[in-house]
Amino acid sequence: MNFILLSGGSGKRLWPLSNDVRSKQFLKLFQNEAGEYESMAQRLLRQLRAAFPDASVTIATGESQKSAVLNQLAEPDGGGISVCCEPARRDTFPAIALAAAYLYSEQGLGEDEPVIVCPIDPFVGPDYFAALARLERAVRQDAASLVLMGAAPTYPSAKYGYFLPGPAPAGQGENGEGVRPVAWFREKPSEEQAAGYIAEGALWNCGVFGFRLGYLLGILAGYLPAKTYREVYEHYGELPRTSFDYAVAEREKAVGCIRFEGAWKDVGTWNTLAEVMSQPALGNVVLGSGCENVHAVNELEQPLLVMGAKDMIVAAGPDGVLVSDKHQSSYIKPYVDGLHQRVMFEEKSWGSFRVLLEGPHGHSMTVHLAVRAGGQMSYHCHQNRDEVWTVLSGRGRATVEGRETPMGPGTVLRLPAGARHTLRAETAMELIEVQLGCAVEDADVKQF
Amino acid sequence: MNFILLSGGSGKRLWPLSNDVRSKQFLKLFQNEAGEYESMAQRLLRQLRAAFPDASVTIATGESQKSAVLNQLAEPDGGGISVCCEPARRDTFPAIALAAAYLYSEQGLGEDEPVIVCPIDPFVGPDYFAALARLERAVRQDAASLVLMGAAPTYPSAKYGYFLPGPAPAGQGENGEGVRPVAWFREKPSEEQAAGYIAEGALWNCGVFGFRLGYLLGILAGYLPAKTYREVYEHYGELPRTSFDYAVAEREKAVGCIRFEGAWKDVGTWNTLAEVMSQPALGNVVLGSGCENVHAVNELEQPLLVMGAKDMIVAAGPDGVLVSDKHQSSYIKPYVDGLHQRVMFEEKSWGSFRVLLEGPHGHSMTVHLAVRAGGQMSYHCHQNRDEVWTVLSGRGRATVEGRETPMGPGTVLRLPAGARHTLRAETAMELIEVQLGCAVEDADVKQF
Repeated sequence: MNFILLSGGSGKRLWPLSNDVRSKQFLKLFQNEAGEYESMAQRLLRQLRAAFPDASVTIATGESQKSAVLNQLAEPDGGGISVCCEPARRDTFPAIALAAAYLYSEQGLGEDEPVIVCPIDPFVGPDYFAALARLERAVRQDAASLVLMGAAPTYPSAKYGYFLPGPAPAGQGENGEGVRPVAWFREKPSEEQAAGYIAEGALWNCGVFGFRLGYLLGILAGYLPAKTYREVYEHYGELPRTSFDYAVAEREKAVGCIRFEGAWKDVGTWNTLAEVMSQPALGNVVLGSGCENVHAVNELEQPLLVMGAKDMIVAAGPDGVLVSDKHQSSYIKPYVDGLHQRVMFEEKSWGSFRVLLEGPHGHSMTVHLAVRAGGQMSYHCHQNRDEVWTVLSGRGRATVEGRETPMGPGTVLRLPAGARHTLRAETAMELIEVQLGCAVEDADVKQF
Repeated sequence: MNFILLSGGSGKRLWPLSNDVRSKQFLKLFQNEAGEYESMAQRLLRQLRAAFPDASVTIATGESQKSAVLNQLAEPDGGGISVCCEPARRDTFPAIALAAAYLYSEQGLGEDEPVIVCPIDPFVGPDYFAALARLERAVRQDAASLVLMGAAPTYPSAKYGYFLPGPAPAGQGENGEGVRPVAWFREKPSEEQAAGYIAEGALWNCGVFGFRLGYLLGILAGYLPAKTYREVYEHYGELPRTSFDYAVAEREKAVGCIRFEGAWKDVGTWNTLAEVMSQPALGNVVLGSGCENVHAVNELEQPLLVMGAKDMIVAAGPDGVLVSDKHQSSYIKPYVDGLHQRVMFEEKSWGSFRVLLEGPHGHSMTVHLAVRAGGQMSYHCHQNRDEVWTVLSGRGRATVEGRETPMGPGTVLRLPAGARHTLRAETAMELIEVQLGCAVEDADVKQF
C-alpha cells in the first residue's frame, strides 16, 4: 500500500508545548506499551507499520517541520519512509499534488496504483487501519474515482467538516466495501447545524482520501503542465492556495465514501487532548488534595504542584506555563497570538535545542544542544555572533574552517563570528552553547 | 534607638519562590513608590530608616541567610547596619541573647540602653513605627522590665500567639504610653479558642520586645557565664533550643505590654501574601478571560497565561510551579517537604546564582551567575569538578592560583578541579558556569 501522510499546521492551540515550529503532532504525550512516550505522529506511524508492514510511506510536510519529521520518524535505514518537503506552505491541495508527483517521478509508482492520503495525527485504534484497507480495496475495485472515509460522529462538533453518504445508485447495491456516493459536503457548521446534519446521517470528514495516482496527476495537469516532482516543486507558487476538499473532493462527480464506526479524534485542543491522556499527570507533577478533573503536563525538570484545582488544564514547558479552566482552554489562540515570544525549544534534524537563558538587549543567548548519535549539523557560520561550546557528555568531532577536533566531556571550543563549523556526534552528545554578539538572532545562519 | 531585627525561618509555605535558603522575607514581591520591587525585609528596613534615621540596626540571622541579608540589605558604607550571625540555627532566645552580647561587646552599647527586638518581615504601615517609639519610651520610663507589643486582632487566627493585657496595678493608672501588665500568654490556639481570647480582649503577639540591654544580659547569665559576643558564640550550643517567649516573656513577672491598633500582617502563606499584593499579577503574566480572585507571580522569563481560574494562586519560579486554590494553599507544607528538590536559585554575598540545567547522574550542572558591581567571591576550589566560565556581560578580574586575568564579555576561563580561584566584579557581571565532574554537588567547596 502507498500512503501519503500529511503533516502540517502550527501549534498555537496546545501552547505552551506546541509553537510555530513544534506542531501538536510532535508532542510526546502518549505512553506506548513499553512505557515510552511517543508523539501523535510516532504513534500513528507505529500503528500503520504494525497494520501494513510492507507499506510505502511518504510524509508530506513543510520546511519548518522537516527537522522534527526526520528526528522523530526517520529510521536509520530509511525504513520505507520518504519525506516530501514543500518549498513553501500553501494548503492541502498543493501539498498532496506535490507528493503525488513525488511518488510518480521519485518513487516510480505507476499511475494505476492506489494511493491513500491521511493526516499524520488522528487519535485512533486498530479498527481505523482496517477501514484504510477497506478504502484501498474500494479504490482498486474502481468503486469511485475518489473515495473518502467518514467517521460516525459522537457529538455535534463545530470544528469538523461533514459529508452525507447518499443512497447507492439506482439498480446497483453497495459494493462489498460499503461504498456510497457523497450527496453533499458542509464545512465547519454551527453546533445546531451540525446536530441537524448528524440527524440526516452525515459523517465527519476525516481528511482521508483514496485514489489511483493517475487520477490526481490528471487534476494537477489542469493547473500546471507538470508531472514530475522537480517540475511541480519549481512551479509550486503557481498552484492555488486551496484545500484538497475544495479543489478536488467537492468538485468531483464520482466521489464515493465509506463509513468508519470506530473511535476517531482530532486532538487539537487541550480539552480533547485531556480526553485521550492515559493518566491525569505527565512529567514531574504532584496532584495534591482537592484536585478534581485536572490534567497536568510538565515538560520542565522542576516540579509542578497542583492543589484544590477543579476542571483545569495545567501545562508547563520551555515556552511558558498555561493554567486554564478546561472549557476556556479552547479560546487560547488570541492570547497566544499576543505573546510575541521567541521559540524556546526546537527539534532539529540532528537533535534538538533549548534556550536556557536570553541575555538582555539580544547580546547573548545560552542554549542546550542535544545531538543524536550519528547526528550531524550543516556546515555553517554566523555573521554577528561568536559561540562557545562546552561539551557536557558524549563524544564526536567538530570541524572548524576545515580543521577537525575531537570533542568529549569538558571540551571547550570557541567559534568566532564568520568561522564555518559543524559537529558530528559519534555517541549522543549534550553541549552548552553560549552565543555572544551585538545582535544574537536565529536568522543569522549561513549554510555551506 | 537600637534595633535587633530577627531574620529566620525557612520558606516552605511560599514555595516555589521561597526555599531552604531563600526565606519569604527576601522575595521581591512589593512595589515601592519608585515602582521598584523590594522584599519584605527591604521594605521594613526602608520604613524603619525613614522613621528613625539615626537608629542602629543589628540583623540577627543564621549562616544560610547571611548572604541574602548582605546582598539585599547591606549598604556600601555599612549604613549603620550590622549582621550578627549565629553559628547554628537554634531558636529565638539564643539568637536574641547572642545579638544582645554582640551589642554589648562589639557595639559598646551600655547596659542601661533600651533595645527593641522585632521580626524583619511584618507587613505594616507607618503607625507601626510610632508604636515602636512608644514601646521604647515605655522601656526608658521603666514601665516594666520587658515590654511587648500586641496587635489588635482582626480575625480568630489559629497561627498566632495571644496575650491578654491585664488591669493596671491597683493605685496606679496606665503610664503615658498605655503600658498594661500581661495577664496570660496562649500559643497558637484553635480558631474557636482564639475567638474566645479575642472576646476577652487578648492581642496578637507581634514578636516585638523592648528591654534595657542589661536585663537580657542578666537572663543570659542564668544560662551561660558569658557576656561578650565571642564567648556566647563559642558556647552557643549550650543555650537551650527555645523561644524568647517561652524562655523570657512567659516567665517574667514584670512584663508589660502596649496595644497597637494599626494593620499588622505576618505574610507567611500565599493566601495572606495575596491580600497585601498591590496588583493581582507580578512578572510576565497574562490573566485571560474568566479569571476571578486570582493572584499570579511569575519569576521566570517565559510567559504565564491563566484563563478562567477562580480563587487561585499561581506561582512560577526557578524551583517549580504552584497552582493552588487559595484556601488549599495554606496546606502546602507536607507536599513541599515531599519534593526533595535541590535549590535552583540562591542569593550569595557577591550576587546570585541560578541553576539552568542539571545533567543526568550528577555529572554536570549549568549555572547562571550574576555578580554585583564590587562583588567578590571567596578564594575557593572544588575537589571533584572542573568549571568553565563564559562571561556574558560586565567586567572584572579573576584570580586562579594567584594569577590574575581580566574578564569581559566573551572571556572563557577553565578552572580545573583543585585550582583555587575567585572573581571580583568591577561592573555588574553575568556569567555562565558549566560544572563538570564525577559528582557535582553544592558541598564540594573548600574556602581559603
